[in-house]
Amino acid sequence: MSLVVVGSVAYDGVQTPHGQRERMLGGACTYVALAASYFTEVGVVGVVGEDFDPADRRFLEERGIDLAGLQQKPGKTFYWSGVYSEDMNDRVTLRTELNVFADFRPELPPEYRRRPYLFLGNIQPELQRSVRRQMESPRLVGGDTMNYWIENRREELLAALADWGVLLINDSEARLLSGERNLRRAAERIRGLGPRVVVIKRGEYGAALFCDHGAFLAPAYPLDTVSDPTGAGDCFAGGFFGYLAEQGADPSAGGIEPRLLRRAVIYGSVMGSFCCERFGVERFRTLTRAEIDARFQEFKELTEF
Amino acid sequence: MSLVVVGSVAYDGVQTPHGQRERMLGGACTYVALAASYFTEVGVVGVVGEDFDPADRRFLEERGIDLAGLQQKPGKTFYWSGVYSEDMNDRVTLRTELNVFADFRPELPPEYRRRPYLFLGNIQPELQRSVRRQMESPRLVGGDTMNYWIENRREELLAALADWGVLLINDSEARLLSGERNLRRAAERIRGLGPRVVVIKRGEYGAALFCDHGAFLAPAYPLDTVSDPTGAGDCFAGGFFGYLAEQGADPSAGGIEPRLLRRAVIYGSVMGSFCCERFGVERFRTLTRAEIDARFQEFKELTEF
Repeated sequence: MSLVVVGSVAYDGVQTPHGQRERMLGGACTYVALAASYFTEVGVVGVVGEDFDPADRRFLEERGIDLAGLQQKPGKTFYWSGVYSEDMNDRVTLRTELNVFADFRPELPPEYRRRPYLFLGNIQPELQRSVRRQMESPRLVGGDTMNYWIENRREELLAALADWGVLLINDSEARLLSGERNLRRAAERIRGLGPRVVVIKRGEYGAALFCDHGAFLAPAYPLDTVSDPTGAGDCFAGGFFGYLAEQGADPSAGGIEPRLLRRAVIYGSVMGSFCCERFGVERFRTLTRAEIDARFQEFKELTEF
Repeated sequence: MSLVVVGSVAYDGVQTPHGQRERMLGGACTYVALAASYFTEVGVVGVVGEDFDPADRRFLEERGIDLAGLQQKPGKTFYWSGVYSEDMNDRVTLRTELNVFADFRPELPPEYRRRPYLFLGNIQPELQRSVRRQMESPRLVGGDTMNYWIENRREELLAALADWGVLLINDSEARLLSGERNLRRAAERIRGLGPRVVVIKRGEYGAALFCDHGAFLAPAYPLDTVSDPTGAGDCFAGGFFGYLAEQGADPSAGGIEPRLLRRAVIYGSVMGSFCCERFGVERFRTLTRAEIDARFQEFKELTEF
């Protein structure tokens, strides 16, 4: 069932131990939408500048992504560049040029407003709320955030969170938001803020799901080579939420079935792992659903005992 | 089936965010033996000083541990003290007093020599080899090591490793030993040095098993409160190896059954998690096999999808 994704669409410059790219398609909205597009119809809400490459637009359209909500404005597309550490667990930002993203006012095309699933990528919490308000009565709302909003727009973020069914967040952000170092206690504290489903992303260590039915722990796929981790967390979110949308997950009757949530976490991990295999969105030029399902099966073999 | 464990027996002084102990029973051999004692007969090989408390001896004996190989020598027992960081991922050593452990020459009682399972706790690799040579023809030999030996006694360690069926090692040590940052590649490199089974311990992130039948990934148990992580890695080893001994694991015919190895990893994680619940060996004063099996079952619920 149809999913609306809001967030940044960007060009990224990236340097990792495996290579360098000056300018490649990126942004949270792009990665979430691409990963989710293997599971469900996706419509994006974002903004790009005049420099947005028609070839990138075609690439997204060829993945079946609805770009009716992608505004094009005078000026340049959001640009970010950074360098990853040798072990790729850290990165240093070299440049952040917000460009047209600085004045982003998300506007939903009328045909988006009655869609059942909404994923709010990491943008200012007030904008996330504005998007939420433009939707009629979505069945499930999920979102992501980052340390900057937790530290500098805490009240705004808490107001947004109160309305979400699902929060995806990385481990250091979960600790920052909850004030708890312990993962389980951090998740319980956050569940008290609104979202009944909390997924804590732990990078190369996998992901942890906390919901009304208890906890679920999933490893990350043990890749031989990580070319570029940019977008892996967003692809996790896209796989997770895309799968829930595909399966018609419905929180209204006693919460989403735990089996669906667990499988969604694995699909999230699968999509994150594929993302890391190539620079930027490159892997999604060739990736097929059959490869995705085969890797899902591999996760079973990696974890069964 | 009967297991021989060699390693340090010590008194530890420990400070964590949850409290402090001036002097508590510790040492790798102690933790491995205690954890393994829930699964199989255990005989220890170690040394203590005149100050070794008869109550500690009784405690080990009450767990059914055979102390025939525990020498008592003039002088004091090995003493170590340290302080854990707030998140308990790091620790600073305050004091290391080798005492009688400085001249430790492991000698196996004659009745140990024909036992089928041998676990070589972290001591100087040359001593590990000497113990191995005193055994007649153990069915399975496993061992542990540490960064000090990898850096300063590399050749000696490689000579020891060549003879082992199983190596348990933590992630940073695996990287140091293999020269590979990537976990999977590090494990393959190490498997080329001798041990067909490599288990990489990742602390709060769980453990990874690599054997002829592929990889297996297990999370750590999500404890609400970690009181003291001292000995958790050794308890992992004791649970892992103790379970293999209990099940009569036999590498001779085409390698150990992968299902046994996977379940051994989970029992290792279970024992490591119980260890962290109290300071030092305290948890093993009350822990029962029923609690262990219940937590094993909980691991299934935490990981199935």
